Amino acid sequence: MPPPRPDADAHRAWLTRAIELGRSNLVSGDGGPFGAVIVMDGQVIGEGRNQVLQTHDPTAHAEVMALRQACTRLGRHQLPQAILYSSCEPCPMCLSAAYWAHIPRVYFAATRDDAAAAGFIDAELYALFEQRKRATMAIEQIDLPEARAALSAWIDSPLHQPY
Amino acid sequence: MPPPRPDADAHRAWLTRAIELGRSNLVSGDGGPFGAVIVMDGQVIGEGRNQVLQTHDPTAHAEVMALRQACTRLGRHQLPQAILYSSCEPCPMCLSAAYWAHIPRVYFAATRDDAAAAGFIDAELYALFEQRKRATMAIEQIDLPEARAALSAWIDSPLHQPY
Repeated sequence: MPPPRPDADAHRAWLTRAIELGRSNLVSGDGGPFGAVIVMDGQVIGEGRNQVLQTHDPTAHAEVMALRQACTRLGRHQLPQAILYSSCEPCPMCLSAAYWAHIPRVYFAATRDDAAAAGFIDAELYALFEQRKRATMAIEQIDLPEARAALSAWIDSPLHQPY
Repeated sequence: MPPPRPDADAHRAWLTRAIELGRSNLVSGDGGPFGAVIVMDGQVIGEGRNQVLQTHDPTAHAEVMALRQACTRLGRHQLPQAILYSSCEPCPMCLSAAYWAHIPRVYFAATRDDAAAAGFIDAELYALFEQRKRATMAIEQIDLPEARAALSAWIDSPLHQPY
């Protein structure tokens, strides 16, 4: 058996840190036992743990908290050189958040099914997108021309920045 | 042609407010021209506009901002009686955020394709989930038993609350 690659060891070490952050919630009760770390050039630039119950913010997942910390610290809404490590497979919200931040690589340890076994709806949420199941959420378009007009105006605006 | 249903008029009015919030960014440059309103029992409980560029927070989409405002104001991370109105089809991050908040109904005006035409990646992000295209993002599991252990401990914890 070949020796472990150094980068594989690094990935495990960062994931282990993410898991530790998540486990701290088993004591605090601030949210589910989820943690995340964002690393760039071998340095941590953001850490987060789930704080949904503490803050009442349903978006306060570990990955979102870590992203917010990294981006606001660096003053950049995009991190195209960063890696996201998450104790558990990011839910579609968190994965999308990482995508908006242009993070190109994500490592996780536990899976959406492990989260489901702990009572979380991650797998159900993936199904919402993958199988277009929307049984528990009605989503409807009302076509208003002024909505598209705002988008056209954005393209033409001098304030426009792509993101 | 039947007269418009009163609730259809209300939906249009809230959507128009969401569009106004989005349009204010065409002047502020704080983010893309997206706005959102959360309504419960006929009252606005949260409003948001995209503030990604202003705050450097890639998750500061209009819907997320509105959700954060509504939930932290009410001290509740779930809003099962609320409706989300968005000037544009919520991206998967925002739709997932609404799903975590147990919001059962979403109305929007412009579509993901309208957003794409204005240079936004919403459609690409939907494709990430719907077609499992992950070309621009590598997502990999590293199976660590302590990650699942944290989840099992969560189920057994007295601090456990479902969300």
